[in-house]
This record gives sequence, structure tokens and C-alpha cells, in this order.
Amino acid sequence: MLNRTAGLRDVMPHVISIRDFSRDEIDRILDRAAELEPIAHGGSSDLLAGRILATLFHEPSTRTRLSFDAAMKRLGGSVIDFGSIEGSAVSKGENLADTIAVVSGYADAIVLRHPKEGAARMASEFSRVPIINAGDGAGQHPTQTLLDLYTIRKESTLDRVKIAIVGDLKYGRTVHSLVYALSLYNAEIHLVSPDQLKVPESLTNDLSESGTRITETTDLDEVIDYVDVMYLTRIQKERFPDPNEYRTVAGSYRITEETLKRVKDDLIIMHPLPRVDEIDYGVDSSRHAVYFKQSFYGVPVRMAILSMVMGDGTAATGGW
Amino acid sequence: MLNRTAGLRDVMPHVISIRDFSRDEIDRILDRAAELEPIAHGGSSDLLAGRILATLFHEPSTRTRLSFDAAMKRLGGSVIDFGSIEGSAVSKGENLADTIAVVSGYADAIVLRHPKEGAARMASEFSRVPIINAGDGAGQHPTQTLLDLYTIRKESTLDRVKIAIVGDLKYGRTVHSLVYALSLYNAEIHLVSPDQLKVPESLTNDLSESGTRITETTDLDEVIDYVDVMYLTRIQKERFPDPNEYRTVAGSYRITEETLKRVKDDLIIMHPLPRVDEIDYGVDSSRHAVYFKQSFYGVPVRMAILSMVMGDGTAATGGW
Amino acid sequence: MLNRTAGLRDVMPHVISIRDFSRDEIDRILDRAAELEPIAHGGSSDLLAGRILATLFHEPSTRTRLSFDAAMKRLGGSVIDFGSIEGSAVSKGENLADTIAVVSGYADAIVLRHPKEGAARMASEFSRVPIINAGDGAGQHPTQTLLDLYTIRKESTLDRVKIAIVGDLKYGRTVHSLVYALSLYNAEIHLVSPDQLKVPESLTNDLSESGTRITETTDLDEVIDYVDVMYLTRIQKERFPDPNEYRTVAGSYRITEETLKRVKDDLIIMHPLPRVDEIDYGVDSSRHAVYFKQSFYGVPVRMAILSMVMGDGTAATGGW
Repeated sequence: MLNRTAGLRDVMPHVISIRDFSRDEIDRILDRAAELEPIAHGGSSDLLAGRILATLFHEPSTRTRLSFDAAMKRLGGSVIDFGSIEGSAVSKGENLADTIAVVSGYADAIVLRHPKEGAARMASEFSRVPIINAGDGAGQHPTQTLLDLYTIRKESTLDRVKIAIVGDLKYGRTVHSLVYALSLYNAEIHLVSPDQLKVPESLTNDLSESGTRITETTDLDEVIDYVDVMYLTRIQKERFPDPNEYRTVAGSYRITEETLKRVKDDLIIMHPLPRVDEIDYGVDSSRHAVYFKQSFYGVPVRMAILSMVMGDGTAATGGW
Repeated sequence: MLNRTAGLRDVMPHVISIRDFSRDEIDRILDRAAELEPIAHGGSSDLLAGRILATLFHEPSTRTRLSFDAAMKRLGGSVIDFGSIEGSAVSKGENLADTIAVVSGYADAIVLRHPKEGAARMASEFSRVPIINAGDGAGQHPTQTLLDLYTIRKESTLDRVKIAIVGDLKYGRTVHSLVYALSLYNAEIHLVSPDQLKVPESLTNDLSESGTRITETTDLDEVIDYVDVMYLTRIQKERFPDPNEYRTVAGSYRITEETLKRVKDDLIIMHPLPRVDEIDYGVDSSRHAVYFKQSFYGVPVRMAILSMVMGDGTAATGGW
Repeated sequence: MLNRTAGLRDVMPHVISIRDFSRDEIDRILDRAAELEPIAHGGSSDLLAGRILATLFHEPSTRTRLSFDAAMKRLGGSVIDFGSIEGSAVSKGENLADTIAVVSGYADAIVLRHPKEGAARMASEFSRVPIINAGDGAGQHPTQTLLDLYTIRKESTLDRVKIAIVGDLKYGRTVHSLVYALSLYNAEIHLVSPDQLKVPESLTNDLSESGTRITETTDLDEVIDYVDVMYLTRIQKERFPDPNEYRTVAGSYRITEETLKRVKDDLIIMHPLPRVDEIDYGVDSSRHAVYFKQSFYGVPVRMAILSMVMGDGTAATGGW
């Protein structure tokens, strides 16, 4: 049996944005995930026995929901799922604040995915239990960032990592949080994207000022034989008015078995999934491919977060 | 650990209508809920370990479903959810009787929400396990009534309570059951509604004959400084052919911080939720507002019912 | 407490087609189901405590999903459900192979229902955990066949049984698997169907060559007083261009209380459910009707399968 460790709750009851965490706090979460990982491989625990997690996905995200679900159950806890918003009180005109007030009477923590930026922060003001942000529009998705960091730490080296982040760097919320978090670890960050999908200038300015080594290019070849980590993201057809342009751009960042001939021996390839055309299926069996492991690491990382917000033995809904 | 107490099942295996219960039986349920309430505040129990509750909502009702779900899991039991009826055997033409016969082979009790009045009673004839009615059309919703009574008993005084019930008293099934149940507790009931949304005459006649003190008015001001409990309900736009009339009527029953200046010190404000415009958000932080607690009390009350229909240690599906 | 028995996994980690199983292996599964049946009657076990089953129904099938759900929970395990494919990564263009690779990182076994024949076999190649086929298009549905065999064994006699299989024998995948499995038990099989819904010739040829006694007729009366088991299936209106023809054909295979006057005393009537018009409600209370029991037997049979693919104590996702 693992001991209940001191929770996050004294410091920070909610998990809203990766920017709310210091490097030390992130390290504590990743350490806890490493401790819990054996349970994620088919083991069992009663660390959160009797605890209830509510999942509220006001926007679909099957894999994020499922991995929270699995994480909670691996720890012996239960999950209640709000289901789709059609047919819920939301469709009768209820606002998010009331939904949160009600659901926080049923559960010990709430995972929220919402299409509007800032929704999770707002929800945390109306909740009597911890809110975990599972993505709020163009905003934050901190547990994705944490599992990305965990993957890099485990499969490569996190401190001073040389990483290429490739694809749609403009709209991908995953990318912005990851870039920020990597800056805490003195990473050398190479941003690779078509001109129309570059990272927002405000982000690169912020990071350059903080001393992070960062480059931007449209050409993957410039960095392909140099980096330790290649982090690919989906380029969505909808971003391009001209379908031919989409095909040209998407094709130029596509990873094939051919590409692998030019990379470092210990390069790892990551992808938040689902992929569409970014990575050839032939790459899956190479030693470089870690994206399915990365997806699996979502379970121990979310176990760590759940145990830290709920596992300190206090009654979460005891506030009445 | 709580002991398994004698169940409801010897007397009454199903929970269909509040009218099936005597005042003594209701008191027993409310007492049991009070006993179980600490577990609902984030605690844990194995009272229903190994037991399975099936939830069949043939009409959406997220909060009722979720609070049964939470109640069952707080007691250590499991829940299987039928899901939406699209894509189910129901959409292949199966009737409710067959669905119930099948599902009662998978579970130890069934919670049923159905659009047709009488559906729960009918289902109880085809089920080998207890049926709990979670609302059948314009019919009954006994667990809502029980949690309303629990709230009044806990936050005010149930016996001889002076209560105003306000809003749509014609179509709200919640209201009819509540009015009936209050009559068992010698309540003084003030019905406040627009003329077109008055309680059906048959109900007031019944109650007057039984000696219940009951008044009807269209004007909330007549009773606002007098009652112990103000129970508000949603007035639905669809009831009014003329949207302007809706706005006038709805506005006249709206509770604001201004309203609170005229009420008794220990008034409590209840609402079955979701609210739309009936209660200003400014009211939420006042000591009078108990509607979120009321929603929370759905958990211990449903725990009581679940433990009483399943908790007597006999194998529920042992009938084959 | 039941002991963990040797699993299926050494021999056969996946459950894809009934044709992958020998008679001996089927007997072992049915024996295990008999051992576990008391738990399905409302009991409790911790045989699969800490284990997680993922259910992926890319096509709706409420009762199959629910009975796997109940089976897993009766054994103390947990279930995570992929939900509907709208809004999932599948709708973002993800292929089944990737979905399976991801979900097999979250769970210890996967139940898959998919509209395409061969999907379960293909999925088993990309999964790190056992795949249980819950129906793949016109292909296989082995757990249905196993529960049918269990029902016959328990309610009649499986070896050398005389069975009539009635209705749509052309499109019903249930029927093809059942006919094959019955041939392992030296059954005498009477196929009763309208000409346009006869079993495919390839199947009858196969079986005749293997020495199975098999007849075909359009007239139920020819065998009605002779067989031990009558297995009815749904005849779907959509198979008939002419609605009148549908009514005539369907009517001629309809079982009523009248029909029962001509059958053997110990005849059992089976149906995979849902029924539409094939069996009169008056038949339900006769001693011949076992179709609701048959549906219930899905729970112990699926418990047996789940315990055999996951219950051997090894960490299922330990492959990383």
C-alpha cells in the first residue's frame, strides 16, 4: 500500500493552468506519477476508495475522459459522468456556475472540459471541491502538459532537452502550455511550422525574455538530425482555405521510415494523438515511436493529480 | 460501519409514489438518511458492496441520475446505465416490459425515469428487483419529495411548517407530491401562482377535506413575511402563448436581495433546480438560500432508499 | 471465495470467433460460468478487483454492453466505456488500430462491437490486452453463442439436442455461430425459415460433410412436436420489399399459447431478444419460456470469459 502523501490541496486545491505551478511542484507531481505507475500497469490500489470523481465534458474528448476514468478506478475510486449536455439541465438554460455548485455536492473532485477559455477558473470559484481543467477552449490543458513532461523525463531527459515542436503551433493549446513548461527546464526549443501556423509572438517574446533558447523555422530538415525529441501535432485541414496548400504543407512535416534514417539514435517521437497523416504507420514499430506510451502515461500522471487533490484524507464535501 | 437495517422490502419492495408511504415510513426513511449523511460528505461505506443499480432514464435528468449514481457509489455499490434510448433495443421496437425483464436480470434494483405516467407502476409488475420511480411524466417523483422533506426537517421544522409554494403549480409533478406529503405533517400551505398555473382543484379539495390548512393566492407579497419556507419552481416560457405575459408573470415571482428585506429571519428558500430566472444570483450567498444544500441532500436520501430496498442481505435476483 | 483458475490467456488471449474454440474449451467456459452463476444472482466477488474492462461499442447494443458491464462489476472489477463514436477521436479521423492501441493502455481487456466483419480480429493485432468480440458486422458474436449453449445445457440437454432454429437464418450472425457450435455437440438441427432467408449453402454443406444431422424446411409445423429446443429469431421488415409478404411470413412463425398445445412437455423456447412479434406475451408465463433466463445467463457466461482472460493474476498492461 502506498501511503497517502501530503496533497496539493493546502497549496493549490485546483488544477487550472500549468502556469500556476512552479518547477518544484511539477517535479513533485511527476515523482508521484512515477511512484503510482506500477498500479497503472494493471495493478490495484485503495488509495481513493470511497472517493467520487465527476467528469463534465461539455465538449467531447474521449481519450482524456477515459484516462481520467481509468486513473480514478486504478486508485479504487468511483466516477460519475455528466454525459452529453443535450438533455441535461444545461440545455434547460442552467449556467455553468449552478451546474458546478450542484455537482460539487455529489463528488469529491470535478474534471471539466469546456469550450470557453477561462471556464475552469470560473468554475473553481463556484465549486466546493477541486476542479481539474481538462481543456478550456483555446486556454489551458495542464494534465496534457504534465503527461508530455513525464514522457520526456522518462523516455529521454527533461533538463536541457533539445526539442522540435512541429505542426500547428498557432491554435494548438497543448503546444503553448508545453512550451511554457519546457522553459522551466532550460529546454532548447525549435518551433517548426508553416508561416500561417506559427506560435503567437507574445509567447516567443515572453520566453526569450526569460532566457529560454528558442528558434523558429518552417523547415523540419534544419533540426531533424539534432534534436532529442520531436513533438508532432495535427495540422487541421480547416485551417487552409486552399486544400492543395494543406496537402503540400501537411506533407512536408510527415514522418516516414525514410525520415528516421536522418535522426539521432535516441530520438523519441511524440504526438498528443489522435494523429491523422502526420506519422506513417511504418514508424510505429521503430524504437523512436513513443506516442502510444505517451498516451498510456496519461494514466499515472492523472493518478498522481487525483491522489494529490483528493488523497489527503479530509472529507472533500464536508464544507456544509 | 453502519449495520444493515431491516429493509423496506418486506413491506414495500418498490418506490413508486409518495402516496404509498405512511408518515411513519417516511420518518424511517428520513432517519436513515440522517444516519447516512456523513458518508455523503465524502465518506465511504461497503453497505452495498457487490450490489448493482441499473439506471434507465428514458427521458433526460442529469442531476437525478447523477445523485443516484453518487448515492450508490458512496455505499460501495456499482451502477450500470442503460444510456440513451436511441440505439437501444427500445429503438428496435422493444416494449418497456421486456426491457425491465431483461435489465432486472443484470441488477439488484432499477431506477426508472419515463415520460409516461404510470410507467413505473407497470414496470414494477415485470421486474424481479425493486423499481425506484425517478419521475414518470406528469405522475410521481417520490425521491424528490423525500429530499424536499428532508431539507425542511433539517434546515427548518417539518411539523406544522408554514410554507409558500410558488410558481408553476399546475404542471410541476414535484409540487403535487410535496403538497400531499406536507399534509401528513400538518403543514400550513400557501399556494402562490398565476391563475393559469394553479394547482388542480382535485388536489386542493382532497387536502381541504383531510383538514390541511391551505390557501391560494396570485400575490407572493401576501405571505412573504409570514412563512418559514419559500419553495420556488420554474415557470416555463412554453406555458404562455404570449411572451410578454410570460415575462410579467415570471418577473412578479422573482426573488432578489430586495425581496429578502421583508422575510423572516429564519426563512429558508428552496428550489428543485435547475433555476432559470426565479432567484437572483445575489441571493445565493444569503443565509436563506438552501437550494444547493437541498440538491446535495438528494444523495443521503437516495442512499437511504437504496440501502432500504437492497441492503437487507438477501440476493435480489435470486428468484430464478 | 473462488480461486483464480488457469486462464484462457496461455492458449488464446482473445475471444474472436466461436470457431477458435474446441468442444473441450467451450466446456471449460460453460463449467466456469456454472461455478460463477451464484455471484450473478446478486452476490459479490473480488476476483477481478482492480481490473478494468473497456467497452467499445461502435454500433449500439445496449443489452450486450450492460451484461458485460454487470458481469465485470459482479466480479469486483471496473468498466470504462468509450461512449458513442460521435465526438470521439474516431470522428476526427482516427482509425480503429490507433484507438485500440490507446485504449489498451487504459484497460486490462477490451470488449469490441464493430459494424465491419473482421474488425475484432484486426483489433487483436494492435492490442496489448485481450480483445473480446461482441459482434463484428455479419461476422461473429461468440459470447452470444456461448450463452445460448449454456442455456441449452442448463435448461435442456446439450449433447444430441434436437433443435429447431426459426426465422431469419440468412442475416442473423447469431444463428451461423450457433449452428456451428451445436455441430460440436452432435445436435440434430432443423432449420426453419422462409425461402428468401435460408441459411447460406456454404454453412449447410460444411456441416453435412462433418456428419451433422441437419434438415431445412419452410414449415414450422413439421418439427414443432418433435424438438427439445425452439430457437426463434427476429425477422426484420426491411428484408422484404413487400410489406404484405413480410406480414404473412412473420405471422407463420409466430408462437402463441395455441402453438404450445402441440409441443413436447419439456420443450424450451429461446430467443436472443429483443423480440418484436415472434412470441406472444401470453407465452411468457408458460414453463416453456426461457428467453429471459437466457438473457440473464449472459451475465455468468461473460463473467466466465472475463475471469478467464483477466483472472490469472498477471498484469495485463505490463508489456511496456
